[in-house]
Amino acid sequence: MKISARNVFDGTVEAVKPGAINSEVDIALPGGMKIVATVTNDSITELGLTAGKAVKALIKASSVLVLADGSGVKLSARNRLEGTISGLIEGPVSTEVAITLPNGYKVYATITHEASVALGLKPGLPATAVFKAPSVILGVSA
Amino acid sequence: MKISARNVFDGTVEAVKPGAINSEVDIALPGGMKIVATVTNDSITELGLTAGKAVKALIKASSVLVLADGSGVKLSARNRLEGTISGLIEGPVSTEVAITLPNGYKVYATITHEASVALGLKPGLPATAVFKAPSVILGVSA
Amino acid sequence: MKISARNVFDGTVEAVKPGAINSEVDIALPGGMKIVATVTNDSITELGLTAGKAVKALIKASSVLVLADGSGVKLSARNRLEGTISGLIEGPVSTEVAITLPNGYKVYATITHEASVALGLKPGLPATAVFKAPSVILGVSA
Repeated sequence: MKISARNVFDGTVEAVKPGAINSEVDIALPGGMKIVATVTNDSITELGLTAGKAVKALIKASSVLVLADGSGVKLSARNRLEGTISGLIEGPVSTEVAITLPNGYKVYATITHEASVALGLKPGLPATAVFKAPSVILGVSA
Repeated sequence: MKISARNVFDGTVEAVKPGAINSEVDIALPGGMKIVATVTNDSITELGLTAGKAVKALIKASSVLVLADGSGVKLSARNRLEGTISGLIEGPVSTEVAITLPNGYKVYATITHEASVALGLKPGLPATAVFKAPSVILGVSA
Repeated sequence: MKISARNVFDGTVEAVKPGAINSEVDIALPGGMKIVATVTNDSITELGLTAGKAVKALIKASSVLVLADGSGVKLSARNRLEGTISGLIEGPVSTEVAITLPNGYKVYATITHEASVALGLKPGLPATAVFKAPSVILGVSA
């Protein structure tokens, strides 16, 4: 597979909670981290997603927010991966932020340049990658 | 809280409509405007979202479309905030558009540069910020 | 209608599968291609979406992933439109990719510049535009 998603994480399905149209899938990553994905029930069947299954979680960089200071707030976004800023690529409108997680995974976020400046993002500072469950695409070996 | 979302709006929960996995949350903004968010039921519980609760609605600029002329069409996107273009930052691929709402709030949208040119976007012109309910992240004071 | 979505496709509703809050809408495009959209039940009612109805499917370029080689993997994303790369606009952070489909439609994807380089995207190469059902906004004539 060669795909443009900047974030492709290997994990294992922990649980599948079915709804009428969509299901919530809990995924364990190395190092005790977790990701929650919402996918259609058709995908659950087609990909054979059940507990224990090896799975790839794909998240577009544009779906990821960067939380520089989460004190005093609780967010509805199910996915929050805490790490350290390890890279910044600045453009006139957009900035790509790389956050390295304790397990060595890198999460990439594309945010506006103005947000990057307003938050004072710099390599070495702590930051949390935040994304919603419906932003996650799941993949399995064919 | 310091977060990269360009759009962070203070509002009040008006109603919560539960589904099997997700709930729809109606939020009132100052000036009679409304936002609809879809979040997981787990978030409803965790954030204690009930009618009357103060809440922050976060929307990434990349989730927002700009409607320059909505005549002759009805869209499925639940959120449509009408205002006036108050700023444009142009890049080679992306353009950031700021739309000021009647209540003074600013909504930011990141769109393609080509779309910006094709629509003839200019400060002072009317425009509507359009985004889907699942694009909204909710936050409450911890 | 004048809207910033780079992808606006004319199609016909084939089926509507209702859930508690959202419904899945199957849409036929010219040339035998299909799109699946997830929209709220309120939108189904408001837009009068039923089988046979003419509909526009709108997808932001930032919601589209580019799959350069899909061998060995199955993805949960419901929408996969196969075509040929017909244009690339490179920026420092983002790249806009145009993929021309067999029916003549063009799909635009905004991806990170680094992903574009890593995948070796070039005009003339085959590529698949991938996007999730909740990324699709539907429109009907008013």
